[in-house]
Amino acid sequence: MAAVEIVEVGPRDGLQNESALVSTEAKIAYIEALIAAGARRIEATSFVHPKRVPQMADAEAVMAGVPRRDDVRYLGLVVNERGLDRALAAGVDEVNVVVVATETFSERNQGMSMEAALRSFAAISGRAHAAGVPVTATIGAAFGCPFEGEVAPATVAELVRSCADAGADEIALADTIGVGVPADVERLIGEVRAVTGLPLRFHFHNTRNTGYANALAAVAGGAAALDASAGGIGGCPFAPAATGNIATEDLTYALRRSGIASGLELSGVVAAATLIEAELGTQIPALLGRAGDFPVRSAAHSRPV
Amino acid sequence: MAAVEIVEVGPRDGLQNESALVSTEAKIAYIEALIAAGARRIEATSFVHPKRVPQMADAEAVMAGVPRRDDVRYLGLVVNERGLDRALAAGVDEVNVVVVATETFSERNQGMSMEAALRSFAAISGRAHAAGVPVTATIGAAFGCPFEGEVAPATVAELVRSCADAGADEIALADTIGVGVPADVERLIGEVRAVTGLPLRFHFHNTRNTGYANALAAVAGGAAALDASAGGIGGCPFAPAATGNIATEDLTYALRRSGIASGLELSGVVAAATLIEAELGTQIPALLGRAGDFPVRSAAHSRPV
Repeated sequence: MAAVEIVEVGPRDGLQNESALVSTEAKIAYIEALIAAGARRIEATSFVHPKRVPQMADAEAVMAGVPRRDDVRYLGLVVNERGLDRALAAGVDEVNVVVVATETFSERNQGMSMEAALRSFAAISGRAHAAGVPVTATIGAAFGCPFEGEVAPATVAELVRSCADAGADEIALADTIGVGVPADVERLIGEVRAVTGLPLRFHFHNTRNTGYANALAAVAGGAAALDASAGGIGGCPFAPAATGNIATEDLTYALRRSGIASGLELSGVVAAATLIEAELGTQIPALLGRAGDFPVRSAAHSRPV
Repeated sequence: MAAVEIVEVGPRDGLQNESALVSTEAKIAYIEALIAAGARRIEATSFVHPKRVPQMADAEAVMAGVPRRDDVRYLGLVVNERGLDRALAAGVDEVNVVVVATETFSERNQGMSMEAALRSFAAISGRAHAAGVPVTATIGAAFGCPFEGEVAPATVAELVRSCADAGADEIALADTIGVGVPADVERLIGEVRAVTGLPLRFHFHNTRNTGYANALAAVAGGAAALDASAGGIGGCPFAPAATGNIATEDLTYALRRSGIASGLELSGVVAAATLIEAELGTQIPALLGRAGDFPVRSAAHSRPV
């Protein structure tokens, strides 16, 4: 059976754009529910300046409160060495660093040029490795930029090569603003595979209803991991109209019916999403909780005509 | 360039499940807006008993009011010979007849057994052909049934063969309750292609967020046409939780970025959807109107790293 790993990003990318501040306790309960549903790799928080992303101001408290298990790995997003210091002190298992594929977005998202971002990535990567912590390079706006428009796959591949040279252990290709289609996924995988053999992870937003098609295309193209957020919550505060991540439960449904193992249990994911929906007080974009499951069964029920 | 025909079903499948009664004038304005956006094959209404589907009680008035052009074809849904009489009198260009793939759904949706539905289809088909009007057989619940669960592709193929034998000019495979995934689409195309060479049309609902992936899989598998509703409105009043059709604008976006021609112009479809959204007074499920377009451009904007 084919398989793909789901990286649960609801607690980080899912929550960071929500205006309702969620308590540390509720975040921990969300993470516990995700683990109960089978999540084993969870982006728990980000170590950014609390004035920039107030929702993540309790990063240390979240990491201090989550259950520690040998089979669960917590990722922390960091944008600079100060963030790395905090992440290491908080005991993350992995760090995720975003490097953006266009100059304008890099300046707006991270306040630095792409060249500076690459230098910063190399410094973070070296110090994380010294601490025994693996590093993911997430290529932001890899499918298109809200400011510069189209991004050439060759540009992304060149940035991937630079990140690989700088020590990345995994490459995540992010459709930050949700503009890609499966043909883009296939093309980008081709370009990136020409420059690195590192495991590929994909991060899709469903902004224009192409996210799930893209996710399945990524799996077909050999992706090792997919990001998703339980409930489909999330977005990017610095990208206009970048609505939610693909929803973990809807992705789990699509994968299971496609015969692709993810290790997640659908009703458990829906329970985690319901929990965070109640905290946020808004309807989540995920559909499985509303539509209900359609379990895979034998075809014995259906009658021949 | 690859191409697929979009059958606009917003005026029929889109509206029939909406509780707000839409005026005949508004329906005609919606259809006119769709034509302005490039729609050339439009399921304009259904000729069913007005007590069963009150929204379609004005079928004759809609057909009397729509613009008649040589390049636009109007489809009418009929469920029995009485409906066919009305459709022919109203001057439809094509008729669409639903035959459901399970006994329980057939009884609930149409009040007859599958065998009776096939006899009815043959009678409708013969009389429509005598009047020079082509007939589509839409196989309802072809991807799963809300009452009986899984539907075997072989069962669907057998029903397709019967409809082809009874004179169908086109086969439409409908995921009435939105449970399918691309792997199901591929499997079903394989089974159906073994029994008929008729043009294949697909009808997807996005109930579980798999509709757009399915649509792209259908095109890849050789589908000649796809149903969609501008705004993503729609559903089936007799199928629990069968939410909207895939949205014409979101599909148009995905196809265009995939290099597949549809003849539709995105901003025009969004305008038609906005018009019907205002009539319905509820937020439509389509995302393009909210997220905005991301036009295909040259890659000249993006800089090498």
